[in-house]
Amino acid sequence: MKAIVTVMLKNGVLDPQGKAIGQALATLGFAGVGEVRVGKRIELDLAETDPAKAREAAEAMARALLANLVIESFSVEIV
Amino acid sequence: MKAIVTVMLKNGVLDPQGKAIGQALATLGFAGVGEVRVGKRIELDLAETDPAKAREAAEAMARALLANLVIESFSVEIV
Repeated sequence: MKAIVTVMLKNGVLDPQGKAIGQALATLGFAGVGEVRVGKRIELDLAETDPAKAREAAEAMARALLANLVIESFSVEIV
Repeated sequence: MKAIVTVMLKNGVLDPQGKAIGQALATLGFAGVGEVRVGKRIELDLAETDPAKAREAAEAMARALLANLVIESFSVEIV
């Protein structure tokens, strides 16, 4: 199964990369762009064939390694 | 409207960050993890209220700045 882990900075945590992208877009002439936030998308190929167990495993991986839960939140999608 | 631009390395392009995550997961004792690929998720708040125009604008932004089309591909989702 494939698990997609999306990791985003929590609301309220400053996102300098997003800010930089927003400014660069304005410089390039794109108008009407408000807040920009940047996160990570991690695609994992898992040997597990049971969707529930695959989700559990991916969530454990996110908690252990992929996300810094102090400043980031994550969501898991099984496809 | 909110546009979500997902940028991933093209298939065949080496992903050292994904490789490192795969090895770290193995070291942490997570078994059954095959290929790992890492990409970016960029959330844009757009003033545009027409979904078709918002998608067009986000695609133009992706081509101009957010993705390096030589090695990366992108997809746009309007929410």
